[in-house]
Amino acid sequence: MKEKNIPISTLRRLPVYLHYLNSIKDKISNISATAIAEEFGLNDVQVRKDLGAVSGSGRPKTGYSVTELIAQLEEALGYGTKTKTILVGAGNLGKALLSYSGFADYGIDIIAAFDNNPALWGTFVGGKPILPDIDLEAVCRDKKIMLGIITVPVEHAQEICDRLVACGIRAIWNFAPTILRVPEGVMVENENLASSLAILCKHLREGSNGEDYLE
Amino acid sequence: MKEKNIPISTLRRLPVYLHYLNSIKDKISNISATAIAEEFGLNDVQVRKDLGAVSGSGRPKTGYSVTELIAQLEEALGYGTKTKTILVGAGNLGKALLSYSGFADYGIDIIAAFDNNPALWGTFVGGKPILPDIDLEAVCRDKKIMLGIITVPVEHAQEICDRLVACGIRAIWNFAPTILRVPEGVMVENENLASSLAILCKHLREGSNGEDYLE
Repeated sequence: MKEKNIPISTLRRLPVYLHYLNSIKDKISNISATAIAEEFGLNDVQVRKDLGAVSGSGRPKTGYSVTELIAQLEEALGYGTKTKTILVGAGNLGKALLSYSGFADYGIDIIAAFDNNPALWGTFVGGKPILPDIDLEAVCRDKKIMLGIITVPVEHAQEICDRLVACGIRAIWNFAPTILRVPEGVMVENENLASSLAILCKHLREGSNGEDYLE
Repeated sequence: MKEKNIPISTLRRLPVYLHYLNSIKDKISNISATAIAEEFGLNDVQVRKDLGAVSGSGRPKTGYSVTELIAQLEEALGYGTKTKTILVGAGNLGKALLSYSGFADYGIDIIAAFDNNPALWGTFVGGKPILPDIDLEAVCRDKKIMLGIITVPVEHAQEICDRLVACGIRAIWNFAPTILRVPEGVMVENENLASSLAILCKHLREGSNGEDYLE
């Protein structure tokens, strides 16, 4: 199934619109791009463009049908098809992600987690089994896993990444604070918590109006 | 304490360099920008520029002193000063972040978490107390909290954001899948897990070489 070429920046906003539409669908049946733009303090030309990438344009006066738009957003985001996913590294952060029930709504299905700590093998977190890391390749190939989540310590991240790529995984969600090297065609999305914090703390140190917010 | 104006893109890479340098500091005493660039598959002009923003240039032949560079990176990232932080919303994701020991290294100190669920009040997660959300304002003002982490359900995110801003918080780390409206001078860093997944899953659906990876 080929889809229209949706820009990355639009793609980042689509789940936000979808979440909002789901929250209002029982109350209203139609909505305009302008109303959505106002809700999020966005430019309405931008919202119109974003929605245009997944839907037609809204009808004059009535705008978009909320239920139709929800269906179109879900289709564009692939929420109907569950992407088979595994997670490697069942430490604090890994367990947190395994317990996070929100992912079920986001089109991924975490089949299993892997760890090198024998004490964890055979246990379940968030209903997902934690398996020995030596079984990684067998499970990935057998279950045709497509997405890998890396939550191992940084010193093991590249090795795990290489193993995932060797099993045919083409998309990696990386939580280790490092830069992974991958062959062409493999996509890495970095969720670097340290980097996010660095930016926020820098903003605080600099102050927003020349004031020094640190004691 | 005013600092040199470090570009955001550089700031995102600094924690990565720092983590790497800490992992090798017991083995080697000097390192070149080229060696760091090779480690991460980055352009060495880029690495030289990044390091130049926090340090002088490396010495010819010997490069940078690893321990000096670590100290300079830590100072630039503000890891010496702990930014007082609170978290609002002690659901699965909130608890996960509270349990994540890594933050202690990243220059933030989570003082407390808040939730509207009375069953959680007075309990501890990761050593941090969970307090009634009605105490939010009092604690923020009393403890001079500077950074707020939002992990509440999306429908409460804007309200919590407004309350944090009203208490003088100037930096918000937002995990709710929405776009927060804040006054000028307040910085929001979004960690939208749904958006990251949307991008990865889109890549998988499109295939890297025209192949369809979804069953």
